[in-house]
Amino acid sequence: MHPSTTGNASLRLGALEAGGTKMVMSILDQQGVMLERVSIPTRTPQETMPEMIAFFRDQQIGSLGVGCFGPLDLNPASPAYGCITATPKLDWRNYPLLDEFRRALNVPVLLDTDVNGAALAESRLGAAQGLGSCVYVTIGTGIGGGLIIGGECVHGLMHPEMGHQLLTPHPEDPSPEGFCPYHRRCLEGLASGPAIMKRWGIPAQELPEDHPAWQLEAYYLAQMCHNAMMTFSPEKIILGGGVMHKEFLFPMIREKTLELLGGYISSPAVDAGLADYIVSPGLGDNSGVMGAWLLARRAYEEGGN
Amino acid sequence: MHPSTTGNASLRLGALEAGGTKMVMSILDQQGVMLERVSIPTRTPQETMPEMIAFFRDQQIGSLGVGCFGPLDLNPASPAYGCITATPKLDWRNYPLLDEFRRALNVPVLLDTDVNGAALAESRLGAAQGLGSCVYVTIGTGIGGGLIIGGECVHGLMHPEMGHQLLTPHPEDPSPEGFCPYHRRCLEGLASGPAIMKRWGIPAQELPEDHPAWQLEAYYLAQMCHNAMMTFSPEKIILGGGVMHKEFLFPMIREKTLELLGGYISSPAVDAGLADYIVSPGLGDNSGVMGAWLLARRAYEEGGN
Repeated sequence: MHPSTTGNASLRLGALEAGGTKMVMSILDQQGVMLERVSIPTRTPQETMPEMIAFFRDQQIGSLGVGCFGPLDLNPASPAYGCITATPKLDWRNYPLLDEFRRALNVPVLLDTDVNGAALAESRLGAAQGLGSCVYVTIGTGIGGGLIIGGECVHGLMHPEMGHQLLTPHPEDPSPEGFCPYHRRCLEGLASGPAIMKRWGIPAQELPEDHPAWQLEAYYLAQMCHNAMMTFSPEKIILGGGVMHKEFLFPMIREKTLELLGGYISSPAVDAGLADYIVSPGLGDNSGVMGAWLLARRAYEEGGN
Repeated sequence: MHPSTTGNASLRLGALEAGGTKMVMSILDQQGVMLERVSIPTRTPQETMPEMIAFFRDQQIGSLGVGCFGPLDLNPASPAYGCITATPKLDWRNYPLLDEFRRALNVPVLLDTDVNGAALAESRLGAAQGLGSCVYVTIGTGIGGGLIIGGECVHGLMHPEMGHQLLTPHPEDPSPEGFCPYHRRCLEGLASGPAIMKRWGIPAQELPEDHPAWQLEAYYLAQMCHNAMMTFSPEKIILGGGVMHKEFLFPMIREKTLELLGGYISSPAVDAGLADYIVSPGLGDNSGVMGAWLLARRAYEEGGN
């Protein structure tokens, strides 16, 4: 049964974008039309969960989809399935998010990472529509990525943690080790918004287009694109998040990616200068909510609790 | 119809491992039992193809699976589908391998990269049996990798070209740029057998266990493992090929991967020191032929030509 074809016009689907600073709760219908949208600050689970549960209960949702900050345990065979795991947000560490929602709401619930949800939405409704694979990377206060292969979100040993892949520092980087507490020279430590701020002492959004910060930024994101193409070969690379609102970055990243590729691979996308390959999100800032909505729709189709 | 359950005991499946120096042609039955195996040198297509076609025709095969050196065009929508593309083996560049075999043999034929075939075999019959995902990387005269996600070989924009991902040189590497004609400091240019030979002037197989070469080698392969875990998160990393016959490399690679992970992810595989996660091929040196056999079996099931 596919909800959008059942004619159950009154069905309400819950979509939660669970972030470290705020929880955005939306109610959409089966066609994806937004009916309600409320945002509350993320405090402790003891404070935040009852408020969310009360909201979704009031809204009489048929199912809930949750796109959450990671890391999450998404292995159905694991005892910790559906828990937030080793997050630096200590109040939420080991919190059984999926089970708590299922128990309290008594409707089907599906959980994935926020970025896997966004990648799913982009692959079904956005920039990668009609393609079997894409990677969605958000570059903002952190860097995270979701991966779609064979039309589905990739979960393996864990789930992608794109921000913590290791890169080579730019020879002119004044902070070549980056700022990640876990890894020297990982993508997030080198290229997130806070890393740019720490390196130059100026917030990213205030740096002018001709500032050397952007050459470094494009170089790091190009390494990420090159390695994505060489390892899992996505059909589209989608870059979102606050830093990518600087649209002049796109041609810079494409140019540096082509340089790094060095003519090694030939494909129409490469021959066209990657203009239609390394792109911004087709859903703008709505990839996250539409990802949670897709999870809710699937939860409703699959039923159970 | 699943060949192994059809009871067609006389069915003969052709499996070709197409390499740059030799072509290994095998005939197996439906259960994967080897019946014939012949190897010929790889010369030009004009010399080599008729010999292979004659062999497979004589053997009266029901279908053919081909695991071939890359790059290949594996996009069914492409005009060059089934061709070898930008290979440095100039005689074979743009050669329509799939079409030629289909036309000449008039049986169903399936083509994939040699390493995707090997990865498929490891996921169905070898070290990753029962898992939905794995990466298989061979480290020898070149470095290549195949990727299984959702139980199937990954083809996206192209297919994985694992050897050409970019790494950070070890601070003590006397040849930190590596030896790839296309890319500075790519995995193949830094860590293949010929790269080791060029760096130290001694063939890899003659270098003793305490030679600094192996610290560098483990460091490069650990970067590859770390980045695989952070980007596509395979459930198993399988390392094969001539260089990995040095079995002392495995614990070195695991240790350096753990160092690079820096405690960031927790999972039973990581907690167990990656001993059952970064492993040698379960099929030994037979991953390639069994991969081609699996492709032949699928070609026979799917039928057509």
